[in-house]
Amino acid sequence: MKKAVILLSGGLDSATVLALAQNQGYECYCLSFDYGQRHNAELAAARRVAMALGAKEHRVATIDLAAFGGSALTDAKIEVPVDGVQEGAIPVTYVPARNTIMLSFALGWAEVLGAHEIFIGVNAVDYSGYPDCRPEFIAAFERMANLATKVGVEGAQLHIRTPLINLSKAEIIQTGASLGFDYGLTVSCYKADLQGRACGVCDACRLRRDGFQAAGLADPTHYQ
Amino acid sequence: MKKAVILLSGGLDSATVLALAQNQGYECYCLSFDYGQRHNAELAAARRVAMALGAKEHRVATIDLAAFGGSALTDAKIEVPVDGVQEGAIPVTYVPARNTIMLSFALGWAEVLGAHEIFIGVNAVDYSGYPDCRPEFIAAFERMANLATKVGVEGAQLHIRTPLINLSKAEIIQTGASLGFDYGLTVSCYKADLQGRACGVCDACRLRRDGFQAAGLADPTHYQ
Repeated sequence: MKKAVILLSGGLDSATVLALAQNQGYECYCLSFDYGQRHNAELAAARRVAMALGAKEHRVATIDLAAFGGSALTDAKIEVPVDGVQEGAIPVTYVPARNTIMLSFALGWAEVLGAHEIFIGVNAVDYSGYPDCRPEFIAAFERMANLATKVGVEGAQLHIRTPLINLSKAEIIQTGASLGFDYGLTVSCYKADLQGRACGVCDACRLRRDGFQAAGLADPTHYQ
Repeated sequence: MKKAVILLSGGLDSATVLALAQNQGYECYCLSFDYGQRHNAELAAARRVAMALGAKEHRVATIDLAAFGGSALTDAKIEVPVDGVQEGAIPVTYVPARNTIMLSFALGWAEVLGAHEIFIGVNAVDYSGYPDCRPEFIAAFERMANLATKVGVEGAQLHIRTPLINLSKAEIIQTGASLGFDYGLTVSCYKADLQGRACGVCDACRLRRDGFQAAGLADPTHYQ
């Protein structure tokens, strides 16, 4: 069975990625991070999602992103914006080097497992302001990863899979729904409470609600 | 003053890098990792070195490399070899994706600081068996880093500096010594005791002792 490492946040996008990878016959090793994020209810959601979708294993790695600050998601001194996404600007919810760091951990685990595939739910449509969600970043990471590890040295190819990169939020939701996945298990909100209930007003909540509307599906989100 | 992030392990190589960067006029922000390594005495050495060389700041980030195992340095079930370096093989002391992960954290901190330089003491001579010590890996990481971050998007160039990459251990030691650095502060041993005293027989100890001999300098290492 082909092994894959899946970056799983507990949100809607990465849950869809896991559903897709399971559907494609991969043995899925899910990796989540406790990085001092405010929305820690995501980790509980990640555990629910991994179990519901039948992942082989789920690990949570603790990493110190908060040590550097610089983002509304990890630095208590920066406010999470609730007044919509600004066009063209890099949002304050951007966490410096987050995807690079998470992919690097996935790379380490992939090497130990002998997995040649890493799945990540980056999306260049809704998160166009995040430099590390762009296809050119992913391609550069993949190239680097093949030089960084034994796998690459020994001649096998390591691939970074981004099945959502060009999908709209509505298309992502339709994909997961067509596989029978229950999005009520996921938490997207940047300011979710301890029970995982969403605030309804942050950027992530807006994108998610608009996504269900555009997909023509009922929104299963639990709001505060 | 130009800012630089310096990856500092407490060993001989990264201490030399810090001495060089300080000498080149950088304001140095040192980053060490607590990754469950057996030779934790390295972190105490890193603190001594950062202070002795006048670094601006020194942070220790805790990361979960041990969660994946796969290396003699992080997995208690794998023995640290004491019978010399094998030609051509990747040593069991290789930690999967370690340099990728550490450089990724440095990248995040560099972005928050507005630093455009990251220094790392990789060496392609003595550690030719480690895929992530090769110049082609560093070049690919730098390229990826410029796509991963705001710095790159905003047009500035981020550089990964590897001043030791083509130096022999003797040349590294001569470099630090010529800058007046006291290598007695550093710990290289994979099996150092709590006081930082070296075992004298692991690969790292052999390389270090041979280096002082070839450099024609007295070995200031504290042995057990």
